[in-house]
Order: sequence, then structure tokens, then C-alpha cells
Amino acid sequence: MDSVEEEIYQVRKLEISDKNKGFIELLQQLTVCDSVSDEAFLERFQEIAKYGDDHVICVIQDDNSNSGRIVATGSLFIEKKFIRNCGKVGHIEDVVVDSSVRGKQLGKKIIDFLSDHARAMGCYKVILDCSLENRPFYEKCGFKQKEIQMVKYFI
Amino acid sequence: MDSVEEEIYQVRKLEISDKNKGFIELLQQLTVCDSVSDEAFLERFQEIAKYGDDHVICVIQDDNSNSGRIVATGSLFIEKKFIRNCGKVGHIEDVVVDSSVRGKQLGKKIIDFLSDHARAMGCYKVILDCSLENRPFYEKCGFKQKEIQMVKYFI
Repeated sequence: MDSVEEEIYQVRKLEISDKNKGFIELLQQLTVCDSVSDEAFLERFQEIAKYGDDHVICVIQDDNSNSGRIVATGSLFIEKKFIRNCGKVGHIEDVVVDSSVRGKQLGKKIIDFLSDHARAMGCYKVILDCSLENRPFYEKCGFKQKEIQMVKYFI
Repeated sequence: MDSVEEEIYQVRKLEISDKNKGFIELLQQLTVCDSVSDEAFLERFQEIAKYGDDHVICVIQDDNSNSGRIVATGSLFIEKKFIRNCGKVGHIEDVVVDSSVRGKQLGKKIIDFLSDHARAMGCYKVILDCSLENRPFYEKCGFKQKEIQMVKYFI
């Protein structure tokens, strides 16, 4: 990526207007994500905003094209614990890069942004769950495999 | 476990007075957990309490003995997402049962309590990370292995 592209692909926090820039459609590349009404989006946005720096969603907007679409995102929330001397842990979730811009290291930019935030907030570690297939990517971001993830679905 | 023991080992939410009933010492069986001052405990307790039903720590007190000590605990916090139709996910953390009372299914009681809470709060799933060694226990609680956990330590 040259320096011009570096300038174009900046990470910033999610804004309400990003809903109309393809944010939801981007999440649909990750998992089941039905279309969300403007009201539902705003309500959830405000619920998350209440947590302040303890729950951050970041995005990259593609200013390289006329579309100005959101092409990468990831979220981080901070869990407060009693262990580790009343320590804090950052949880990274819902990382996705638009299939049209893969290979430009936007995923790494997202992970670095969220990890830096977690560290700045005083977390002693940051964790995430991923498929075995995505392990090499996260290793490049400085992560190591530790445990296994278990899940119980209600619906 | 007979019905008398069933009555004795009830799950309830963490209270401030549990600090003097061995709550921190119990967490020390799980991981690094230095002794915590009363002030630091109260501050963290209040920070977590602000989240209301979105962050619950539960405990089991041993009323079977004169000690009245806390012998099991686990925590759950609820993450608000945009995916899955603005869905919610329950994250289970820091589950530990005192080594002296293992085999009484207290761990399952803790997991069931936290899972039931997540379901009641509208989560579409509940997730946790554990060692491969603990997988059979969580399978008995209705969980299935899904992904892998990656971690990056800052300290």
C-alpha cells in the first residue's frame, strides 16, 4: 500500500450516518444480519454510545472511490473484572473487511486500532474468537491461540 | 446431591459482604488474583453494578458448613450488537468452583443460572472460552465447541 492509500484508509469511530454508507451490508458479509430500520439502528447506536470508551465500534470508509462506502469494521468492549488486581480485558468482535478491498491490510488496521484502544484503557490483554482458518491473520497481528470457544444457541 | 444439599447450594448475585467470605480467595483458584483492598473491591463492584442486568456476577455460599464461605462463582455480561437483527450475546467469564466441593455439580448450577439470565435478557446465544480439558464439562451444560480463542497480552 503506498502512502496515498495509507492516507485514504483511515480508521475512525462509527457514526450514525454510516448506516447509509453500507455499514449493515458490510456486516452481512460476516454473518446473518437482516436489514435494520433507521429507528432500530439509532436505538442500538445510542445504547452502545452510553458505554463511552468501554464499547467502541470502528470503521474504515473508502474515500478512494466516489462511493464513500464503509469497507471495514470491528468492535471492542471492555470487561471489568476482579481477577488480575481488578483488571480489565478487551474483547474484539465482529471484524469484517469488504471482499472488494481485501489484501490492503485493512483488517490489520482495524485490529491494531482496537488493540491500541484496549491497551490505552488499561486492559491487561485483548481476546477474540475466530475460525482456525483465520488464525494466521491474527498471528500476524500479534495474537496467539490459547483456549477454545464454546457456544450455546437459544434460537 | 440430595434435596437438602440442593436447598443449601443456592445461586445468588454477588454482594459486597462476599469479599469477607472468601470470594477473592476463590478467584485465586482460577488465576492470578492478588488480594484486593476493601476500597478497590467496592469501587469495582459499583462500576459493574452500573451495568445492571447487563453484567451479573453470581455466587454460591456454603451454608452447609459454619464457614458460610463462597464456594462457586461465575460472571456474565451482555454485548449489544448490530448483527442478528441488533442481537445480544451473553459472555460467560471467570467460572470457578472451590476444590473442596467439586463433584456436587455446583459448576453446572452456575452455568445454568448465567445461561438462563442471558436467555431471559434476549440473547440469541451465550459463549465462553475454556481449556480443551474442560470441554466435556461444558458439553454437559449444553455447549458445543465452535471456534478458537486468540489472545494478545499487554503485560
